[in-house]
Amino acid sequence: MLIDQKNPHGGDVYTHENALDFSSNVNPEGMPGPVRSALAAAIDKCAQYPDPYCRALRKKTAAAEGVAEERILFGNGASELIYSFAYALPKEKPSLIVAPAFSEYAAALQAAKAEADYYFTKPETGFALDREFGEIDFSRFGAVFLCSPSNPAGTVAEPEKVLELLEKGARVLLDVTFLDLTERPGVYPLDEWVDKYPRLAVLRAFTKSCTMAGVRLGYVMSSGEALLREMSRTVQCWNVSVLAQEAGMAALDCREWLQASAARLHTEKRRFVRELRRLEVTVFPSEANYILLYSPADVCGGLLMKNILVRDCSDYPGLGKGYFRIAVRKPEENGRLVEALREVLS
Amino acid sequence: MLIDQKNPHGGDVYTHENALDFSSNVNPEGMPGPVRSALAAAIDKCAQYPDPYCRALRKKTAAAEGVAEERILFGNGASELIYSFAYALPKEKPSLIVAPAFSEYAAALQAAKAEADYYFTKPETGFALDREFGEIDFSRFGAVFLCSPSNPAGTVAEPEKVLELLEKGARVLLDVTFLDLTERPGVYPLDEWVDKYPRLAVLRAFTKSCTMAGVRLGYVMSSGEALLREMSRTVQCWNVSVLAQEAGMAALDCREWLQASAARLHTEKRRFVRELRRLEVTVFPSEANYILLYSPADVCGGLLMKNILVRDCSDYPGLGKGYFRIAVRKPEENGRLVEALREVLS
Repeated sequence: MLIDQKNPHGGDVYTHENALDFSSNVNPEGMPGPVRSALAAAIDKCAQYPDPYCRALRKKTAAAEGVAEERILFGNGASELIYSFAYALPKEKPSLIVAPAFSEYAAALQAAKAEADYYFTKPETGFALDREFGEIDFSRFGAVFLCSPSNPAGTVAEPEKVLELLEKGARVLLDVTFLDLTERPGVYPLDEWVDKYPRLAVLRAFTKSCTMAGVRLGYVMSSGEALLREMSRTVQCWNVSVLAQEAGMAALDCREWLQASAARLHTEKRRFVRELRRLEVTVFPSEANYILLYSPADVCGGLLMKNILVRDCSDYPGLGKGYFRIAVRKPEENGRLVEALREVLS
Repeated sequence: MLIDQKNPHGGDVYTHENALDFSSNVNPEGMPGPVRSALAAAIDKCAQYPDPYCRALRKKTAAAEGVAEERILFGNGASELIYSFAYALPKEKPSLIVAPAFSEYAAALQAAKAEADYYFTKPETGFALDREFGEIDFSRFGAVFLCSPSNPAGTVAEPEKVLELLEKGARVLLDVTFLDLTERPGVYPLDEWVDKYPRLAVLRAFTKSCTMAGVRLGYVMSSGEALLREMSRTVQCWNVSVLAQEAGMAALDCREWLQASAARLHTEKRRFVRELRRLEVTVFPSEANYILLYSPADVCGGLLMKNILVRDCSDYPGLGKGYFRIAVRKPEENGRLVEALREVLS
């Protein structure tokens, strides 16, 4: 990005050094030891170009997901694949973004010179997919961008709602990059769906669950051969670094750690939410490792004065002034946020 | 990339483990110590998303290049920026590739649904830009892709030829990713050109000179504000990893090492070329850290039997069967190649 552009993702630890960062949604337990070790060992392999096919990582990922190797495409973070997906879409029809949503969907569609329409889920129904959604004529859209758990609201789309969409033949980018950190990581039979619905592309990342956002690694799973092929053509040959490939291999071995850390996260989240609900702020129900809140007060500005970063969500289509998102961090840090919020809100 | 696609860049150390690899053109002295240390230290910072603006790296690169900070755009390797450049081009006119050339130019134009034309430099003039090139009406082309030193031939375009192109108002992607390892790294006044010609985009990389191809880091310099802005829009916000940003900072401190290692490379290259010229093979003059050769015999296949990888150039538009490229490596390794070549050619 150019320096005179606005970072569309809010909280910026590079501007606000030493800030307590609640704006970034990664696993609060940090990067697991084996991933760190793999990165350190990979430095020796960085003189070479990366394997353009990510063969070792592909094999291991395919086994872990129960999906055939040729149905996986890796990217420089999930974000790169959002752009690839947008570039690969036929451009005759607009795409539908289930909002409020991660702003890179719209940015990617814009980059690909494709139109974006929005379907707005509503605060009063906890940002869930409602009956109205089921009545949409999806054939009008080139693709549907659906994030589950949604971001910033943290709402998991019910499997029957997603299935309805797939059964109707919609092309769907199902972004489940945060699903591993919910209490229902296995809510969707992804391997079966990928097999059965070639118009489905499932987006996953190692970024959040294994706290390696700085490494950049994500992947798409789809049995839509033409789509994957076209996506692959839209990016360079060596898009996934040696370091990312090696880190990903190690991350796949960290499933137990991931489950255990997710369980600790949920315990802390319940406590944290109870504390938050005692404050003069609207706390939306969330299944994710982040929570959407609302207050008419200038909470973001007030917290920044205390060197705490949260994600101001006023610029999300479908939200507006007063909405902000916080990550669930460690107990002591969450305690500091509650204290700071109490002061700002009073 | 998908596993059933062909790697367009030949030699593949992931298929041919423990092969002696002459197909990849990196600095034979490997990654400098400070870059390794920076990578190791950067692991601690990888829990965070990277700085989308690459601010620290940008500041240091701008100072090293004598170019304003806002005129630099970083990418996930130079290759990503080739795609960004192609996506950002107006599509009404075809672009001109000075060939034989790196195949990602054509792949990027194809991905961007832009047309590619070729201007073929000729073996008999050492693949230099000739008088005919000067007579081209460049206004017919959206952009000119010019690699100097060229790849695979290793010919440095004379500065007056490039200047002629710029003066004629052509939009030029000048790919100088291998220039640091020639004997004329300062042949072009790049800072002045970037300042004077907004239709020029200069492409550089840390990949080859500091032997960090697996890390992925490149940049474009241009005073064409609209072009840079459009290029920036075509990629995700976090395209440059934390590791790449930190490695790049360290690489900028390695200028002396780079000069010294380049000097050693040139000494060895002269010796190596003398040896090669004694064989039954055509050795084209090259200013780069790689050499283009020609033989009607099946050299690539013969060398592969000996577990030596070279870059088969038969698929380059403008070349054909019999052409192959080798990197200049360390004396002992180059000696092994000369021996193997002698056997294959006899």
